[in-house]
Amino acid sequence: MPTIVVEVMPKAELLDPQGKAVAGALGRLGKTTFSGVRVGKRFEITVDGAVDAAVLAEVQELADTVLSNSVIEDVVGIHVVEEAAAAASN
Amino acid sequence: MPTIVVEVMPKAELLDPQGKAVAGALGRLGKTTFSGVRVGKRFEITVDGAVDAAVLAEVQELADTVLSNSVIEDVVGIHVVEEAAAAASN
Repeated sequence: MPTIVVEVMPKAELLDPQGKAVAGALGRLGKTTFSGVRVGKRFEITVDGAVDAAVLAEVQELADTVLSNSVIEDVVGIHVVEEAAAAASN
Repeated sequence: MPTIVVEVMPKAELLDPQGKAVAGALGRLGKTTFSGVRVGKRFEITVDGAVDAAVLAEVQELADTVLSNSVIEDVVGIHVVEEAAAAASN
């Protein structure tokens, strides 16, 4: 079955405490190559049947209303991963 | 500055309670097209300077040791996003 990936990140203009904590940890580990970290969410939604325009529109609406909080987060990507690719990444 | 994206998902063979909760919510909203949801993390790491093989190797090691818990999670993707693409997605 195809999988739709929805990516949600905290808005660029807002403080991301979780990302700051990770960035601080990297600094304490001596990793000075990295200047910042932001932490967001990645949803994998399994679809029954084929992915058509209607399903994608439904996912777009869900991403905006259910999967992200539009006050503090942006949906940065929605893409379809075919079954073969999903299996290969496991 | 280039950004490296690290994607971490709960292992396929483990229960993902957060994903189950989202899937249940979708069901209660009448969205029956979707048979499952899994929720993972997406890290955006900003790199000072250019991304070369050494930086990518360092990120791979960090992804395996710091950014994911290998007992319950898999690193499913590491890819470089150029500055222009990152700005366009904002």
